[in-house]
Amino acid sequence: MNHFSLPAAQQLILQHTARLDTEIIPLAHSLNRVLAKDILANRDHPPYDVSAMDGYAVRAKNLSTCPILLTVTEDIRAGALPVMTVSDGQCARIMTGAALPHGADTVIRAEDTETVSPDTVQINVGATLGTDIRKQGENLRTGTIVLQAGMTITPGVLGILAMVKCAQVPVYCQPRVAILSTGDELEGLDDPFDSNKIPDANSHTLFAQVSALGITPTLLGIAQDNPVALAHAIRRGLDYDVLLISGGTSVGVHDYVRPTLAELDIQMHFWRVAIRPGHPFAFGTSPKNQVFCLPGNPVSSMVCFEQFVAPALRQAMGQRRLFRRTLTARLSHAIGHRHQNVEFVRVQLAQDQQGYVATATDSQSSGVLLSMAHADGLLIVPADSNGLAAGEAVTVQCLYDMDYQNTPFGALI
Amino acid sequence: MNHFSLPAAQQLILQHTARLDTEIIPLAHSLNRVLAKDILANRDHPPYDVSAMDGYAVRAKNLSTCPILLTVTEDIRAGALPVMTVSDGQCARIMTGAALPHGADTVIRAEDTETVSPDTVQINVGATLGTDIRKQGENLRTGTIVLQAGMTITPGVLGILAMVKCAQVPVYCQPRVAILSTGDELEGLDDPFDSNKIPDANSHTLFAQVSALGITPTLLGIAQDNPVALAHAIRRGLDYDVLLISGGTSVGVHDYVRPTLAELDIQMHFWRVAIRPGHPFAFGTSPKNQVFCLPGNPVSSMVCFEQFVAPALRQAMGQRRLFRRTLTARLSHAIGHRHQNVEFVRVQLAQDQQGYVATATDSQSSGVLLSMAHADGLLIVPADSNGLAAGEAVTVQCLYDMDYQNTPFGALI
Repeated sequence: MNHFSLPAAQQLILQHTARLDTEIIPLAHSLNRVLAKDILANRDHPPYDVSAMDGYAVRAKNLSTCPILLTVTEDIRAGALPVMTVSDGQCARIMTGAALPHGADTVIRAEDTETVSPDTVQINVGATLGTDIRKQGENLRTGTIVLQAGMTITPGVLGILAMVKCAQVPVYCQPRVAILSTGDELEGLDDPFDSNKIPDANSHTLFAQVSALGITPTLLGIAQDNPVALAHAIRRGLDYDVLLISGGTSVGVHDYVRPTLAELDIQMHFWRVAIRPGHPFAFGTSPKNQVFCLPGNPVSSMVCFEQFVAPALRQAMGQRRLFRRTLTARLSHAIGHRHQNVEFVRVQLAQDQQGYVATATDSQSSGVLLSMAHADGLLIVPADSNGLAAGEAVTVQCLYDMDYQNTPFGALI
Repeated sequence: MNHFSLPAAQQLILQHTARLDTEIIPLAHSLNRVLAKDILANRDHPPYDVSAMDGYAVRAKNLSTCPILLTVTEDIRAGALPVMTVSDGQCARIMTGAALPHGADTVIRAEDTETVSPDTVQINVGATLGTDIRKQGENLRTGTIVLQAGMTITPGVLGILAMVKCAQVPVYCQPRVAILSTGDELEGLDDPFDSNKIPDANSHTLFAQVSALGITPTLLGIAQDNPVALAHAIRRGLDYDVLLISGGTSVGVHDYVRPTLAELDIQMHFWRVAIRPGHPFAFGTSPKNQVFCLPGNPVSSMVCFEQFVAPALRQAMGQRRLFRRTLTARLSHAIGHRHQNVEFVRVQLAQDQQGYVATATDSQSSGVLLSMAHADGLLIVPADSNGLAAGEAVTVQCLYDMDYQNTPFGALI
């Protein structure tokens, strides 16, 4: 059977992942979505030259000798427009964000002044022309593109959208995702307790992993291992853009996933990938669907989701950074490596003066989900490695990071 | 006026931040919340010794010479219990996750075998005793604590909760947060366009920053700069656990925020912090409330939120890692530094073979929110720095990272 390499499998999946259509949603729901159109400024911001500080609007050339007394012409508060012109020997009391009056060219901060009387102030320190003034249009200029299609809507971007009064935001749609577990041995969350059964964790870890991308998936429950039940459940799953089948990659005689997918015209591109944990991972497509078959082992399932499914879901949503961020850490102990697979070792990260230190979690068995619960990241062991030494610089993929990067592991593999 | 240092201000805020009560919520809503109780395993997992692979359950001592022919006694699928005992010269066909039959002690993978007839298989490769068996209770053991109170519910933790059938999860409550903008110069998102006004960005950036922590805040809109309107709006805000007031830190004569807070028995702990951007930042408390006054400049507001408000909200929710993660990067250009403040420089991060490279965004004016929209992180310049050189190793706080750390900046400041 053909074992795809990790990069080949990732590339093939992304080649079969189209960006979705666009939709218009309220600003308050747009965090972490991807802008589908360029956004133009509809105003100058600031709308005029404004003070950057609370203080006094002055003419810089009046302050060649300080301290000096100036006559206060008016109080200008933010939101009100100035009435008077500042002439030599005069100044205006001004608030942060308030419009600079005619004649003034510089702002002196309140802490560099002393009030002498209600209409006289002593300026203690001069300033160069233009100090503490924010120029009209410095932030936004009418008609210019301020945000580009393809940008992720971070809090800063969301603030800009508010500034240009974009209350309804054009974004790429999110894929509709369904999750199906398979296996007679599985007990669902709401099923009665049976000590001989295995509780279904994968539906829920996959639910959480999809949710972490901002998508609310649909749980289709557990399909029994018979062709009729399975075909029925998979058909329901094909109503969604993306179907995740947990435990559907077995090669055993009791596996009905493959024939059922073939019958439903899903073209399977590969069934195995040369990674550990996780190698029994499969990917198929139809004109309307993507189907990912994830390993039944919960850790393998989680690792495969991060390497293959998450990048595809992110690409479909219009994201440009598809892969979880990696960082460099020092390894606190040696790690052996024999097989010709890329290996993902669950690690905890600590920090010392020299940077990050990675330590493998207790168990690395793919059945032990607790090791994933305790992990901060996945240490990546390249396929051709002969093992890693204590103290060696290693690449760790961060598991709980909202930031993504363009390439999966830099130049590592 | 007393300028608090950054660490002193952070410490004082956290001293005045109590962890909230606990509540019970459905598993599907529990992602990123914090467990409020230890969770015990209610079953062994696996419930018995199971096969880790699809293959054949054998007696290891039968395989001293390979290839060897064995008689297949039965097919054991996951979820069904074995009927036969495996004796010498026999084996059982077994699926991943299926129970190991009596007599068998080792599993041989399907790929190391050849089917000779329906009831005969040729084993090509031997294996040491116990290979590819997952032991009963290896993952979870009945009655033992599997998850500790205080753990953040990541996808892996959520999977464990599903395994122990914890459909209703005890977690710490989330603070109820209200956001109030102040200033006559501000125009709300739904107000008519007025070219002389400043659009209110801060309500929305704060909304997004709070949302990014998993909390849905309430927007109270814009309070006008007069004592009656302001007192009314702040009183509404004090119905919430946490009130964020944007633009309430000015020292100008038109500032009614201070007297209003005093009148409403909010004890203010400080009004300024020695950081740039962001130094006009204030913090107050009453027995029921926390009040944060954030600078009106949108970048300053965002920076103060990340340093002061987010750690407090996270502590209230029971999180133990309070501060955004930092990483070490090389600086691509020199950065000057004179004033005695900790400075936050907005930077973009790139990666090359040596690690991360940080480059300041175009404008560093605190009025230019676009610079925040384009930033990946905040480079931290210590207060006593005389400037940073190109190529120097610097600490960058990641802005879009779901992972947090115990200390704000390691030993840096």
